[in-house]
Amino acid sequence: MTRASHIYPKDRLILREVGLRDGLQMVKVWPDTDAKRDWINREYNAGLRHFEVGSFLPEARFPQFADVREVADAVCNLPDAHAIALVLNERGLKDALAADVDEITLVLSATVAHSQANQHRSQAEAIELVRRAIAARGSDGPLVSVGIAMAFGCSITGRVLPKDVLALVDTCLRAGADVIGLADTVGFAGPDEVCFLTKQAGKVCGPVPLFIHLHDTRGMGIANAAAAMDAGCRVLDASLGGLGGCPFAPGATGNVVMEDIVFLAQTKGFETGINLDKLIAVRDVLQRTMPAEVLYGAVARAGPLPI
Amino acid sequence: MTRASHIYPKDRLILREVGLRDGLQMVKVWPDTDAKRDWINREYNAGLRHFEVGSFLPEARFPQFADVREVADAVCNLPDAHAIALVLNERGLKDALAADVDEITLVLSATVAHSQANQHRSQAEAIELVRRAIAARGSDGPLVSVGIAMAFGCSITGRVLPKDVLALVDTCLRAGADVIGLADTVGFAGPDEVCFLTKQAGKVCGPVPLFIHLHDTRGMGIANAAAAMDAGCRVLDASLGGLGGCPFAPGATGNVVMEDIVFLAQTKGFETGINLDKLIAVRDVLQRTMPAEVLYGAVARAGPLPI
Repeated sequence: MTRASHIYPKDRLILREVGLRDGLQMVKVWPDTDAKRDWINREYNAGLRHFEVGSFLPEARFPQFADVREVADAVCNLPDAHAIALVLNERGLKDALAADVDEITLVLSATVAHSQANQHRSQAEAIELVRRAIAARGSDGPLVSVGIAMAFGCSITGRVLPKDVLALVDTCLRAGADVIGLADTVGFAGPDEVCFLTKQAGKVCGPVPLFIHLHDTRGMGIANAAAAMDAGCRVLDASLGGLGGCPFAPGATGNVVMEDIVFLAQTKGFETGINLDKLIAVRDVLQRTMPAEVLYGAVARAGPLPI
Repeated sequence: MTRASHIYPKDRLILREVGLRDGLQMVKVWPDTDAKRDWINREYNAGLRHFEVGSFLPEARFPQFADVREVADAVCNLPDAHAIALVLNERGLKDALAADVDEITLVLSATVAHSQANQHRSQAEAIELVRRAIAARGSDGPLVSVGIAMAFGCSITGRVLPKDVLALVDTCLRAGADVIGLADTVGFAGPDEVCFLTKQAGKVCGPVPLFIHLHDTRGMGIANAAAAMDAGCRVLDASLGGLGGCPFAPGATGNVVMEDIVFLAQTKGFETGINLDKLIAVRDVLQRTMPAEVLYGAVARAGPLPI
């Protein structure tokens, strides 16, 4: 048993809705707080329990996350629901600890170059923030997770060696992280790479939950999700309608599509507790509040299996 | 060695362009013969060698295939290129044998109900046509392949049992088929089902090549292709831009996207001989001649790996 075991039990597949954070990262128009609550409530009724609710960032630069506290509250008020918030710096950490979130998630770039270019800090400084988060959250505070960005390839330096990523996983575990994640931030990976690194990272993590965060940039999202599941991963991120772009890959789609990954999980015999028809219906919220955003997903278009 | 070994060597991955047939099955506007030649020549220059060129069907009902002989000639004139044509009945078989094609492909429905509903004949009658094709083609005639439609699920009867499909594979082999295919005609399959049936069918086929024909109806196309490759399949169908719909699944996309399956194959280390940039550029032909058709594909949108 670890601190995260009751949130991420190893015998269940957990699909996390990250659209409210990753999906809104680059949009020009976004749902207001009531619409976000509607999105959450309806996905909750469809069976989802884990939501990334936003990011603690300066309101002036990221007004779409100005209501992160209210959105977190909306999740926390639902029985057994779990609210995750992204934190990128000391100020955000302070705000997140003062708010009511179940999990604080931090980012560590897999490469020195991306760490500097994207976060203006070294990898050591990023890990130092992880340590401070764990020290500050107290005995009944939120989980602290670390997502390793560019774990399957870097938009600046290209190839990323698995051994370097595994060393970072180990460092995060030593720093006390409750949950570790591997992100294919720019959609470089194919399923064999995802399978290999997921298996290896899973060994390093031991009882600590490992999540995989995939982007569908080059159409490998579902194949990579299947590979991660085959490699033993039981926590995967996705967004309704594949919402979201990527600042490092112009023209790219967002996260792997939630509706399609649910269908995938069903074909693999996982009991997700998610109702696909109800889930597809939630796309209305996105269509209504962000009419200019392209929504992806094949299951939503073709429907679940007719018979 | 079998009759098909030099066309489908087991040590190479062969990706076959089926857009000129399956992709044009339902369109209202289609490329003229010159544009089809352009499509073929440019894909050939990108590295493709196997093309399904059309179907021998009544011109009045399927005018998009009226030029199937000229299109077949366009392929056959290219060194090492291979022209495949679909045949659905006795008359089509006679026409195909009189024309210059390298492979005649026939369809056998996996279910009794779909065979009657779609082809107005029994499975036994479909197999009888396979026998007649083999008897008629002579010692230096074209290959005869059989694609088993609805092999992973049927739009009429739902679940299809692997053992029933494997029995049909065996029947086709006994009838003398040179190549066997399994088609997920309506996009019911997930990767585990594709992996299982591909492995089992591969055992039944022995030295006879096995192709997998996938539709991306519910977004599983690339994941299923990865599963088929993992299961040992070395011949996969795809169409440029994922062109094509499906008469049995309204709203469905067409075949798995060629550009994305090439990217997948690259991540798996297969030497396909296909240049992704050149391949993506061929979409121009489709966009120009069929402006109303939606073209799919993530690699075309995001581009191949930048570094």
